[in-house]
Amino acid sequence: MSIIQPSVLPGMMELLPEDQVVFNKMKNIIEDTFKKYAFLPIDTPVMEKLEILLAKGGGETTKQVYTLKKGDTDIGLRFDLTVPLARYVAQHFNDLTFPFRRYHIGKVYRGERNQRGRYREFYQCDVDIIGNNSISIYNDAEIPSVMSEIFYKLGLKNFKYLFNNRKVLNGYFEFLGIEDFVFALRTIDKIEKIGVDNVKKELLENNISEETIDKLLDFLYFKGSNEEILEYLKNLNMDNDLFKEGLEELELVYYNMIAYGVNEENIEIKLSITRGLDYYTGSVYETIIPGYESLGSICSGGRYDDLAGNYTKQKLPGVGLSIGLTRLYFQLKEANLLNLDVKMPFDAIILPMKGYEGESIELLTRLRKNDKIVQAYMEGGKLKKQFNYADKLNIPYVIVIGEDEVKNNFYTLRNMKTGEQKTVDFEYLVNNI
Amino acid sequence: MSIIQPSVLPGMMELLPEDQVVFNKMKNIIEDTFKKYAFLPIDTPVMEKLEILLAKGGGETTKQVYTLKKGDTDIGLRFDLTVPLARYVAQHFNDLTFPFRRYHIGKVYRGERNQRGRYREFYQCDVDIIGNNSISIYNDAEIPSVMSEIFYKLGLKNFKYLFNNRKVLNGYFEFLGIEDFVFALRTIDKIEKIGVDNVKKELLENNISEETIDKLLDFLYFKGSNEEILEYLKNLNMDNDLFKEGLEELELVYYNMIAYGVNEENIEIKLSITRGLDYYTGSVYETIIPGYESLGSICSGGRYDDLAGNYTKQKLPGVGLSIGLTRLYFQLKEANLLNLDVKMPFDAIILPMKGYEGESIELLTRLRKNDKIVQAYMEGGKLKKQFNYADKLNIPYVIVIGEDEVKNNFYTLRNMKTGEQKTVDFEYLVNNI
Repeated sequence: MSIIQPSVLPGMMELLPEDQVVFNKMKNIIEDTFKKYAFLPIDTPVMEKLEILLAKGGGETTKQVYTLKKGDTDIGLRFDLTVPLARYVAQHFNDLTFPFRRYHIGKVYRGERNQRGRYREFYQCDVDIIGNNSISIYNDAEIPSVMSEIFYKLGLKNFKYLFNNRKVLNGYFEFLGIEDFVFALRTIDKIEKIGVDNVKKELLENNISEETIDKLLDFLYFKGSNEEILEYLKNLNMDNDLFKEGLEELELVYYNMIAYGVNEENIEIKLSITRGLDYYTGSVYETIIPGYESLGSICSGGRYDDLAGNYTKQKLPGVGLSIGLTRLYFQLKEANLLNLDVKMPFDAIILPMKGYEGESIELLTRLRKNDKIVQAYMEGGKLKKQFNYADKLNIPYVIVIGEDEVKNNFYTLRNMKTGEQKTVDFEYLVNNI
Repeated sequence: MSIIQPSVLPGMMELLPEDQVVFNKMKNIIEDTFKKYAFLPIDTPVMEKLEILLAKGGGETTKQVYTLKKGDTDIGLRFDLTVPLARYVAQHFNDLTFPFRRYHIGKVYRGERNQRGRYREFYQCDVDIIGNNSISIYNDAEIPSVMSEIFYKLGLKNFKYLFNNRKVLNGYFEFLGIEDFVFALRTIDKIEKIGVDNVKKELLENNISEETIDKLLDFLYFKGSNEEILEYLKNLNMDNDLFKEGLEELELVYYNMIAYGVNEENIEIKLSITRGLDYYTGSVYETIIPGYESLGSICSGGRYDDLAGNYTKQKLPGVGLSIGLTRLYFQLKEANLLNLDVKMPFDAIILPMKGYEGESIELLTRLRKNDKIVQAYMEGGKLKKQFNYADKLNIPYVIVIGEDEVKNNFYTLRNMKTGEQKTVDFEYLVNNI
């Protein structure tokens, strides 16, 4: 038989079991916390009708969609969990209870350019709260508290939410008389790449006055504590309804994030944060790890007015946050920030001497009834080889069963870390491994 | 904006949240039991190189593969978890420890004809133990004990393993001088569809003598207890090495399945069970629910000699079992066999009177610190509407906070099932909801 070289497609993450255990631990922390905060699970097909996926049209992401055909049907693999959520809520609208608090953890697909740390298949972990027609601003404060508990549990205690409100931003642009604020923001976004002077030049070329540009930059990069920023915004005394509404929201959400359990030190109001310009309408969040800014935002989202306008006439506003788990795992590992204390998920292994397989199975079964994670090595061979297996798998305890043990009715227990070995009874095993 | 009708592709299972909770409960039982039995997780990409997926060639399944193209690369969506396992073990051979005990729960894809209860995307839940060159026969007895604990936990106490050994079968065919036993078995497999007489006719037409056919049918459909079947096989006094080896294995595996914790009543040795004719070489298993035979096998597998011959020269024998979870969920629900006592995953909801949002958030955060699954309804409106929300979500307790409560420093707690309402303190809440 000719051999086909075994390999995965480029851009796919595939882990060895010991790493998979760590990855799964992260995934479980995320899911358990979503559940603890009273979110309900959904699970949608990875494949969607292409017309559903591309309903919004345009954009970089849609060019990256994996497409296939089955008969006459054009199919695409989902590229995020937001489009499936919109389709799901529109489709099952009459069977859902609003506010609809849902979480979704699943794989999504993007045919991105192959690049270290960018994956074409990755897990997305989303929480959203969707309203029917309206949704209270308090939800904007609750959503970050879910994710902050997750970050605390992941050992990322000094993460920072960069937090803003689009209404504040848009109101200020209105006040300054900048009409094409999408262009202005895109240009300003390049500030770290091309420098302040080049940004100014581009804006000047587009008929924005130097005075306006300076005001804008002063505003966007105002530095201070969260309280000082809120104070600064109030002192602008803006006569603009959108701005005033945004400021009220920003303040309410900020203080209530803390009430919902986010530590004050983990929040930084940052007026230059914008997120998806055509989607978010109020609160917007990014999340960075100070000292590791180059990792980019590890958790982002915000408030939107209209989740599913492509699929229903119902107005469905909502607020949500999302973690790209596959990339996060890779980044934390690379940056040596994966501080989870994950042991290999084993309590002990039984090594039977030849002829004592039956007694070993009996012990194994009794230990499993006591919820111990054990296995018995039934492959025979030299004891050294068997110990080697236990060692490679990082199994903390070895239990040997042979003639002596059966005759004298005890077990030989070896602590693989200390090398200590003693003879013990069943009860000791149950209480100590 | 024009509306696109929201819908999923045909053949996809998508559940409402209350059903998803039940489905996830099943999935968690399966995963937790796999872990408890000391299996390690793997997670492979849903997409594989098409040449990897189709390496084996032929067969009904390969016609059902979803294919796509990215640049010059032919890609397929995996149609089971066995091919990815083979590719994984071959690829990572040097980094794995053998016997390699792995579990894998993931979605697979088959473009089957659209049919009620058949899904094109479904969860497969697999456990396998893979050896390097050899793997002890005891593993054949352990593997069913994992699945039986799962069935017990799923409330399917009277499931039945139909259990056989291909060597017994093949040895008997050798003894009878039937060369094309694949043809003979395929024909005999149709016995329930076309009747004994038609089966006999087909076999006669293929030069198998009437005497041989009768012996074969007597053998395959021998009725008796497991001990009687083993006795019958021994009394055949067959002078055929393969048969003798198979009988020894059959007996050892049967008694050790019980030692590993499978109830004797859940095992039925059935000599006509064959499974995949070109793959399994020893133990084979199917699983039925007596009284619901039309559901087919809900868990199948067996022993194979050569897992990954298409991808490596290493000889990798193994034994495994697999549950098709999506179909199983559908079948159990249809047959009213879904006996899991699954509550909606909520402990309580807080309903704040207008103006008492702050106190409600404070209580919410304290309760969450005590690991209670709570939410606060922040949408305002009439109390009746709020109670209605709690009712629809089957939330067992409602906590009301308003002027009275804050002034007198208590909470009003309503048991939604009994309608009982009382005033309680925080400690009472922590201990009783």
